[in-house]
Amino acid sequence: MSNHPNKRAKVVIIGAGFGGISAAKALAKAPVDITMIDRRNYHLFQPLLYQVATADLSPADVAWPIRSIFSRQQNVRVVLGEVLDIDTDAKEVVLEEGRFEYDHVIVASGAHHSYFGRDEWEKHAPGLKRVIDATEIRKNVLMAFERAEVSDDPVEQARQMTFVVVGGGPTGVEMAGAIAELAHHALARDFRHINSRSARIILIEAGPRLLSAFPEKLSNKAKASLEKLGVEVMLDTMVQDITADGVQLDGAFIPSACKVWGAGVAVKNVGRWLNVDTDRSGRIAVGGDMSVPGLPEVFVIGDAAKVAWKEDADVPGIAPAAKQGGKYVAKRIVAALRGKPAPKPFAYKHAGNLATIGRNSAVIDFGKVQLSGFLAWWIWGVAHIYFLIGVRQPIIVAFSWFWSYVTYSKGARLITGLRPLFEEPQEEKPSEV
Amino acid sequence: MSNHPNKRAKVVIIGAGFGGISAAKALAKAPVDITMIDRRNYHLFQPLLYQVATADLSPADVAWPIRSIFSRQQNVRVVLGEVLDIDTDAKEVVLEEGRFEYDHVIVASGAHHSYFGRDEWEKHAPGLKRVIDATEIRKNVLMAFERAEVSDDPVEQARQMTFVVVGGGPTGVEMAGAIAELAHHALARDFRHINSRSARIILIEAGPRLLSAFPEKLSNKAKASLEKLGVEVMLDTMVQDITADGVQLDGAFIPSACKVWGAGVAVKNVGRWLNVDTDRSGRIAVGGDMSVPGLPEVFVIGDAAKVAWKEDADVPGIAPAAKQGGKYVAKRIVAALRGKPAPKPFAYKHAGNLATIGRNSAVIDFGKVQLSGFLAWWIWGVAHIYFLIGVRQPIIVAFSWFWSYVTYSKGARLITGLRPLFEEPQEEKPSEV
Repeated sequence: MSNHPNKRAKVVIIGAGFGGISAAKALAKAPVDITMIDRRNYHLFQPLLYQVATADLSPADVAWPIRSIFSRQQNVRVVLGEVLDIDTDAKEVVLEEGRFEYDHVIVASGAHHSYFGRDEWEKHAPGLKRVIDATEIRKNVLMAFERAEVSDDPVEQARQMTFVVVGGGPTGVEMAGAIAELAHHALARDFRHINSRSARIILIEAGPRLLSAFPEKLSNKAKASLEKLGVEVMLDTMVQDITADGVQLDGAFIPSACKVWGAGVAVKNVGRWLNVDTDRSGRIAVGGDMSVPGLPEVFVIGDAAKVAWKEDADVPGIAPAAKQGGKYVAKRIVAALRGKPAPKPFAYKHAGNLATIGRNSAVIDFGKVQLSGFLAWWIWGVAHIYFLIGVRQPIIVAFSWFWSYVTYSKGARLITGLRPLFEEPQEEKPSEV
Repeated sequence: MSNHPNKRAKVVIIGAGFGGISAAKALAKAPVDITMIDRRNYHLFQPLLYQVATADLSPADVAWPIRSIFSRQQNVRVVLGEVLDIDTDAKEVVLEEGRFEYDHVIVASGAHHSYFGRDEWEKHAPGLKRVIDATEIRKNVLMAFERAEVSDDPVEQARQMTFVVVGGGPTGVEMAGAIAELAHHALARDFRHINSRSARIILIEAGPRLLSAFPEKLSNKAKASLEKLGVEVMLDTMVQDITADGVQLDGAFIPSACKVWGAGVAVKNVGRWLNVDTDRSGRIAVGGDMSVPGLPEVFVIGDAAKVAWKEDADVPGIAPAAKQGGKYVAKRIVAALRGKPAPKPFAYKHAGNLATIGRNSAVIDFGKVQLSGFLAWWIWGVAHIYFLIGVRQPIIVAFSWFWSYVTYSKGARLITGLRPLFEEPQEEKPSEV
């Protein structure tokens, strides 16, 4: 047990996102043996994933092998595997590969996109959570132009060149802006039969404004910036159905070959693992110490946790919040191991909200200070390059950005998704691993 | 017709490899309309593809969108599609997307890996011709270590950590050297249960020496360099069978989870398209003008062409030969259009052979001058960065190289292949395109 002096405590961390990584780093010098479990071998810098989808960056620019993050931290063992269950009586995390004992377990498994019970929409409108989502969306966007170029049917060409983004949050706003620029600038000289500039990019939001987490003033600026980029913004608009052919609204139907989902996220599995209740989006309500009521050795942080913040809001599901949660839980565990008094309850410090709209504009809400436009875009860029430290060579990412900024070129404009349309049949076979 | 003064000649180029691209570039100022047909949307810098397989480079570092190569060359139309047939009577190239008329057609469709009639081996030992091959091999190599790390069975661990490369040509030599360095350096600190340095890398060659295109002295140097890297080189060794479990030789069986094929290449489809005979490896014997006997408006260049060079050898299937063929055919077409006398028959100029062995050694054969070791490696590196111009930002590729050279890190060490082992089921569904 953790309070036994002669034995190092066992800490299992589920998920190598911002929360899990920061918890493990904060435990580097603690007398613990850490098992970091993730379903993938890389830590993903989510805030830039949309740029992989729009061919500004390569997957390796925004993802970093988990093992290399901890190659010098000897008290971390990385296990690539899928969590099946958590046995809170035996205090073991259950994988196909085996059972992993814990004295403390930190659940930082994050959130996935959610289709509000309409999972059949996913194959028509992929969300943007994993590298494979991004390369899939990239392929869909680029193939739409390719198919329009070889089509002689103006109706089909129009359908191929109509892009619908569902959801007016940061991801939807960023995707819509980036697709508009791809169509209006990067691809402008590429085609002979079609004019990529005539592509329609439609952003659909169910609520009355974009970026609802931002002040209304910035929401309006974001809308204006998107419209300047040629994006059609539809507010107060509910999506009724999404099919291969297009998007059904109340009344109107939008023929569209390429749809992107940025509307909802939900937490998967955690409630089932822990056998506790969750809120509508699958989050676990935790106490001020970030532990699950009745399970003091089980902590939930990041997107998977429901933590009160202000009277009218929970802690948001953003990277800084996950990092703060990870550091806090590490501090609690260390205090317990050292027999020190427990730290004060978790208090989230909100730095601000950022969202970028294409290559020249962004909105930033630092509470008192609110910025928009070109200056905000540069602050956004510098901030993200700064946070990229720890992810792949920031200087190279910076170069890639600078290069595509000055040349409008899309170096990563490769169609190498799940099923490259023109690859050979043998690639349809499952790989051997 | 091409000799009609009032009409621009139609040139169809099949394949955007080194040969097809150089032909199209050489026709930039000619009074022709070019249709460039490829099954993929990118030109691939094949000589560095093995570095994508071994996680030194990202796909976007070695592949470049065809459309962006020709975005400023107005007489080129790019068509993404699969050639089904060539109608030499109607002078049309037949695609699912439609038929494309030609006055001259240049077949530059290259070669694919060949399993000498044992195609069932491919799923166990993928070859290295396409980006998707490289990411697949990368996944197989990295997953082998992951599976060894979570296994408690020493026999299975040994099988996972035994890598077999079949074929002692440049690709096999480069792959074996790069896998050895991945295991012995880049991954050395990553695992806690296994010691990646104890991995076995076995290179199997059926002939009496490696790099048979090189002088024997350099073959021996290459073997010595590989052995210094910890690669076990087996010469005069025939592979009898390749299964999921391992590789069967005469007598001995090598248990191995991860196999790579670098043994043979062959040309596909061209003989069928043109309804002409081919040699054993599917190549078309062309005349001194690079045209197909009896079909003066049909040219075959690059790997798909069988062209006499020296009394004892054909023109080799390497990038410089394909480029020279493309330029030559372009010159012939321009001469015909301008009513000028036809140029002299194609004469291949052989610059030399290069092969690299890991991060510190290479062999170079310039005929009179022969180099090996560290100096040769730097010449190889500089030459390739130089030839990368036209592919993605050479400076960034150079940076990536320099970075992984000094840090031994593998930034691109991502498992995002065809079927990421731990991704969710919906990714098994075909994508919507």
